[in-house]
Amino acid sequence: AFREHFLALHPYDQAKFYEKVGPDIRQTIYLYLSPEEMALIFEVIDLEDDEYEQFLSEMDPAYGAEMLSHMYTDDAVDVLNELDNEQRESFLEMMDSETAEEINELLGYAQYTAGAIMTTEYVTILENSTVRSAMAVLRKEAPNAETIYYIFVVNDQRQLVGVMSLRDLIIADEDILIHDIMSERVVSVKVGDDQEDVAQIMRDYNFLAIPVIDDNNELQGIITVDDIIDVIDEEASDDYSKLAGISDADDFDAGPFKAAMTRLPWLIILLFLGMFTANLMGQFEATLEKVALLAVFIPLISGTSGNSGTQALAVAVRGIATGEVNEQSKLKLLMKECLTGLFTGLACGVTVVAIIFLWKHQITIGLLVGAAICCSILVATIAGSFIPLLMDKLGIDPAVASGPFITTLNDVTSILIYLGLATTFINQIM
Amino acid sequence: AFREHFLALHPYDQAKFYEKVGPDIRQTIYLYLSPEEMALIFEVIDLEDDEYEQFLSEMDPAYGAEMLSHMYTDDAVDVLNELDNEQRESFLEMMDSETAEEINELLGYAQYTAGAIMTTEYVTILENSTVRSAMAVLRKEAPNAETIYYIFVVNDQRQLVGVMSLRDLIIADEDILIHDIMSERVVSVKVGDDQEDVAQIMRDYNFLAIPVIDDNNELQGIITVDDIIDVIDEEASDDYSKLAGISDADDFDAGPFKAAMTRLPWLIILLFLGMFTANLMGQFEATLEKVALLAVFIPLISGTSGNSGTQALAVAVRGIATGEVNEQSKLKLLMKECLTGLFTGLACGVTVVAIIFLWKHQITIGLLVGAAICCSILVATIAGSFIPLLMDKLGIDPAVASGPFITTLNDVTSILIYLGLATTFINQIM
Ligand SMILES: [Mg+2]
Ligand SMILES: [Mg+2]
Ligand SMILES: [Mg+2]
Ligand SMILES: [Mg+2]
Ligand SMILES: [Mg+2]
Ligand SMILES: [Mg+2]
Ligand SMILES: [Mg+2]
Ligand SMILES: [Mg+2]
Ligand SMILES: [Mg+2]
Ligand SMILES: [Mg+2]
Ligand SMILES: [Mg+2]
Ligand SMILES: [Mg+2]
Ligand SMILES: [Mg+2]
Repeated sequence: AFREHFLALHPYDQAKFYEKVGPDIRQTIYLYLSPEEMALIFEVIDLEDDEYEQFLSEMDPAYGAEMLSHMYTDDAVDVLNELDNEQRESFLEMMDSETAEEINELLGYAQYTAGAIMTTEYVTILENSTVRSAMAVLRKEAPNAETIYYIFVVNDQRQLVGVMSLRDLIIADEDILIHDIMSERVVSVKVGDDQEDVAQIMRDYNFLAIPVIDDNNELQGIITVDDIIDVIDEEASDDYSKLAGISDADDFDAGPFKAAMTRLPWLIILLFLGMFTANLMGQFEATLEKVALLAVFIPLISGTSGNSGTQALAVAVRGIATGEVNEQSKLKLLMKECLTGLFTGLACGVTVVAIIFLWKHQITIGLLVGAAICCSILVATIAGSFIPLLMDKLGIDPAVASGPFITTLNDVTSILIYLGLATTFINQIM
Repeated sequence: AFREHFLALHPYDQAKFYEKVGPDIRQTIYLYLSPEEMALIFEVIDLEDDEYEQFLSEMDPAYGAEMLSHMYTDDAVDVLNELDNEQRESFLEMMDSETAEEINELLGYAQYTAGAIMTTEYVTILENSTVRSAMAVLRKEAPNAETIYYIFVVNDQRQLVGVMSLRDLIIADEDILIHDIMSERVVSVKVGDDQEDVAQIMRDYNFLAIPVIDDNNELQGIITVDDIIDVIDEEASDDYSKLAGISDADDFDAGPFKAAMTRLPWLIILLFLGMFTANLMGQFEATLEKVALLAVFIPLISGTSGNSGTQALAVAVRGIATGEVNEQSKLKLLMKECLTGLFTGLACGVTVVAIIFLWKHQITIGLLVGAAICCSILVATIAGSFIPLLMDKLGIDPAVASGPFITTLNDVTSILIYLGLATTFINQIM
């Protein structure tokens, strides 16, 4: 009765239940469900990294190995990647050699490439088959293939020559040759392509799956849209985290100590940068001693320049991520940001002069602070767009340039500008 | 020849070409392509908001109206939403009344709801049909439906009672009743549901489409996975932008003046907050006058507290967005962040004391700065998680609490803490 009730649930709901209960109830689940049924759960489950190892070690090793071999190879690879080498090897040894070999090949692709996220369960048809025989192949493969809605047409050398959708297939005349109705304008990606680029293509073309080929145009696997959604989520979360200077490991589930450990590296690095700023300011101690009022505007100036730097940074990082900013348009973006920095700098500078005059009835110090804000914003905006562009050029992920980093960096320049101006015009101010 | 070559391209490639060329070549395209062929382009094209209006006004109105009526209704709605009321009405009047009515209904749903992104072209089957008749319906609907890979099973009142995949259908016995093989565990969403929640469900369950029902369980439309990818992208970009205090209109394509105008509101608001900070610091002018060296550490302290506040903010906003943080776990997150703030605060505080001692051989000022950093980080971390949680509670999008806002807010508290401590212990320092 438990079995029937449980299996009546959608696999994702089964997975949520399985994840939530204690180890004893999970043992009951292993008892009642076949490895094949358990595989469906592991294909949709979304566990913390270390839970994969934990849950697999609860299972009888033979049961676990059989479950893994029933999973789509891409999902099995995801699970195996969470285990240590020894465990992984022992599971692969227990699996049938064909599946183990397929999985081993997938494990060999570098992280974040098309090869690492593709699956090997798809439907291929030879180009000289008829629609009738293609439908027969589809019916036979339906229980095993990850998708049967796209059929990949290959020649005798397993080279990808076309693609067909099941939609076109079911309305086609049964005696017609696949070659005559397939689409030859097949969009594919290479095994080594970056997963982000693959996601961009699938998003643009609205594909449900995309074929992955090697340099020889031989079909090696396919990537389905559900996995692309995970890629998009993962990459977006990664960019978001980096902008704030956190790591993806620092999520809600992490304990306070773990969270602190993931946040501290950035904080400490920025602390040293901050000490450098403090040291720089020390050079202006004489000026600060003469006019203590100057210190009062330091947070305002460094804050505003930090904010505009973060804005420029985010525009540049997002532009690079979406592919809008490429080699040719980089200079255009920089030029644009120079002007944007000038406009925002002038607007903020004038505002500050007005506020200080109206509120404090001071004009000299107002002009000084206004000029410093204007220059700082200009510099911060240019730095905010230049740094990610430079990093991209150097092959570094531009998202690594976080908001806190830009902010702290701009502290240095804005204070240098402000106290530099103040020291130059010290006689007018006093 | 142009026509054949052009149509041999994938619609997305046609769209890229169409978007790039000048108005004269676009006129040629309208001449050679039927409105139906043009509709395929407009279903995948990704234009700037104002380009929709521009391109549509280039077309003969009757041609445009026919194109719109050939588009999937969800995509037609997206285009019509970019036009002004008058244009929209005039297009709807030129369309056949059935389509116009369907579109009008979709236009009525609030932005960012399931109703606003669903399409009305899907395949329904009555539960007492046979597999054979279902396949016949599918073949008939295939050219029009946005997806035929899911079949939605309804009763006589059009209420959703089950779902079937084409995959299950093609391997089923032709004489069997749909009722006997359909899945009754059908996951659906309501027309008023938030698009972000719909995206989360489709991501978790790996669906290619999801049915949308009204309060009466009647099927109103479906949402397909390609549109959900756009939702995910849009929401991620929105969160990212907000964290940096920019708007989505501020992208690479925007001119410098437009970019400045979108950035200035935030900058000016934060400027006023900064003036408030300056005013607050003015209260401590006496202290600053006595020990000018104190000013030197202000950027360090406010910077570090801003950075840790941004980190805590990002963790909370992301947790809320992914649904990990719900009503019950909010308190847990706050407690956790208190401890995280304490750990990071202590670590940074000790580091600063050590640096100042080793570098400047000063212990009193080092202890003061260290204590201020420790307290500031603690407060900033708590504020960084409390503010988005509070906003969520109040029904405001927590992502609105941007990094720059938290940073500027934390300037106030950190300076208050630092100069407060300094004033209290002024005799020890001097
Ligand atoms: Mg398998
Ligand atoms: Mg995967
Ligand atoms: Mg990448
Ligand atoms: Mg798309
Ligand atoms: Mg997969
Ligand atoms: Mg998957
Ligand atoms: Mg990335
Ligand atoms: Mg849409
Ligand atoms: Mg929302
Ligand atoms: Mg998924
Ligand atoms: Mg659609
Ligand atoms: Mg679409
Ligand atoms: Mg959102």
